[in-house]
Amino acid sequence: MMEDRPVSTPNPLGQPLEKPVRLPVAELRDLAERALRSAGVPVKGARWQADLLIDAELKGQPSHGLLRLPRLVRRIRAGVADPETTGTHTWIGQALLQVEGGQGLGPVVARTALDVVQERVHETGIAAASIASANHLGMLAWYAEHVAKRGLVCLAMTTSEALVHPYGGRRALIGTNPIAVGVPAEPEPFVLDMATSQISMGKVHAHALREEPLEPGWALDADGEPTVDPLRAKEGALAPFGGAKGYGLGLAIELMVASLTGTALGTGITGTLDSVHPATKGDLFVLLRPAVVPGHLTDYLTEIRDSGPDRAVLVPGDRARECRSRALANGVELPTALVAELRALDHA
Amino acid sequence: MMEDRPVSTPNPLGQPLEKPVRLPVAELRDLAERALRSAGVPVKGARWQADLLIDAELKGQPSHGLLRLPRLVRRIRAGVADPETTGTHTWIGQALLQVEGGQGLGPVVARTALDVVQERVHETGIAAASIASANHLGMLAWYAEHVAKRGLVCLAMTTSEALVHPYGGRRALIGTNPIAVGVPAEPEPFVLDMATSQISMGKVHAHALREEPLEPGWALDADGEPTVDPLRAKEGALAPFGGAKGYGLGLAIELMVASLTGTALGTGITGTLDSVHPATKGDLFVLLRPAVVPGHLTDYLTEIRDSGPDRAVLVPGDRARECRSRALANGVELPTALVAELRALDHA
Repeated sequence: MMEDRPVSTPNPLGQPLEKPVRLPVAELRDLAERALRSAGVPVKGARWQADLLIDAELKGQPSHGLLRLPRLVRRIRAGVADPETTGTHTWIGQALLQVEGGQGLGPVVARTALDVVQERVHETGIAAASIASANHLGMLAWYAEHVAKRGLVCLAMTTSEALVHPYGGRRALIGTNPIAVGVPAEPEPFVLDMATSQISMGKVHAHALREEPLEPGWALDADGEPTVDPLRAKEGALAPFGGAKGYGLGLAIELMVASLTGTALGTGITGTLDSVHPATKGDLFVLLRPAVVPGHLTDYLTEIRDSGPDRAVLVPGDRARECRSRALANGVELPTALVAELRALDHA
Repeated sequence: MMEDRPVSTPNPLGQPLEKPVRLPVAELRDLAERALRSAGVPVKGARWQADLLIDAELKGQPSHGLLRLPRLVRRIRAGVADPETTGTHTWIGQALLQVEGGQGLGPVVARTALDVVQERVHETGIAAASIASANHLGMLAWYAEHVAKRGLVCLAMTTSEALVHPYGGRRALIGTNPIAVGVPAEPEPFVLDMATSQISMGKVHAHALREEPLEPGWALDADGEPTVDPLRAKEGALAPFGGAKGYGLGLAIELMVASLTGTALGTGITGTLDSVHPATKGDLFVLLRPAVVPGHLTDYLTEIRDSGPDRAVLVPGDRARECRSRALANGVELPTALVAELRALDHA
């Protein structure tokens, strides 16, 4: 039923990374945009969708990168992703934009909404977009950074398919529900983007491939018993990060998003890991106009970075920026099979 | 300098709990309101401040309860807490209320602001209050529940004095920065309220009193080395909860709040644990009008509660509600010395 859901079947997340091909970023972009164009995505939409997939590759997060593209093209061909729509907008209050995504591409629907909300927040001080029925948005960090670079604070959250067990529970009932925060700062904005699970299902698959055990406390098996066997964890549930608190945060995101968007909850959420079901998750973006100039935060962030015993303490976003700089200079490694698959899409 | 800061000196958090007195809730309220009235707090303000202190006692969180009252009265007498002001309001956008707290009582300033924002959100869909220079608000759970019971989603965060070290750092540079979320649900709203530290400094003091070691990973000493000695931890720093992710969340709260309110950051924050310094932290409340009726969430929360292997899985807010029910029936235990101190305040 969920043909390429990683819990049940092999999928690109599970592809061995032998013989990678290193490609310059311009070529990655060309590859992605061509594949999207050939599936009927208009020029601007292809560029916006490619931005998100490539940003994830640049930041060393391939699970949110180009390996999602073949699935997205299958979703378009299966009729559960609309390559053209930008969503339908309804202001249900002066500062709250309700977006019916119409199964559009996640980055296309979200960015169109954010452009409108960014305008509005100059009048209202705070404004939000609640998005239903859009496809996977990609890494929320992209949006948080995009908004923060325009001088606004961004708080973003999204629900996803149930892979996480409640603290004290045994079954997957909560999404990995990421939260992202962007705050204008100098020289670069603060960008936090984190899932509320202890680890990603992609990491479980990677351990399975390498036949490496998981760490204790990361996952339960299908019977709800703790396991370090990645093959058993794939059929089970991931732990929330940080025990009861991380569980509370993940559940709060599930409820806030569903409450604002009217989208599904828990095991009712589909469409981010398969090729055949509509996307029933929701997304929530809150934008705020800061009262201070970004420089107010600079000394503080410097104090934090300099507070380590021997090496610098990392501020969220630092590692991703370093990784991106290296990738822009040196290109990005992709699995050979994935490159071949992407090239074939262009000619399909 | 910070005469009753728990890091450096004995304080009510450290009082032994021998010989507690059990008092009915009406008597607690009378005690609190009389003490506040005698310090010059008007009737309504005394009631609102007492609401917050008593709510914490009812929920089994005495660190946010009446033990804070003698300090608050000292703050009023020292001129760093204004017993009368409700804060000054400026709409810096149609949906963003900037509140200059004028060193008013936290609950008085916050609740006055929330009343105004709750009105506004019916027009705007989302609205926020950013609060500077108010005294300690008490437990954010109270506000989240109060707002959610009125049919609105509430997201609240506040900064506090630096007690938490960055992940990979060695010194206390970040507040325990709590986040609270209230979401309308049936029969009771969802209420999450959590600090972003692994444990509270109150817990360190409690371990010190009982001469019990801390658990590994909870704290660093003044040299930045891991310690399980609560006396050494009192001079050091608390760990963020959940490793790098909890650190990221706590720091994001520090930055979002400072960015919106223009208040201090890190070690610049004073006035929540002492009697002599102005309160330089900030508070941020975001209210949202949900798109769905609370019943949408009920089945899901029931599914979570029923998903435990043998006993119910707790949803955030469940334990506090149970505790409150028992306290309303049976009264609340307070240290004898604290009751005597509160009674003396009334006659001071």
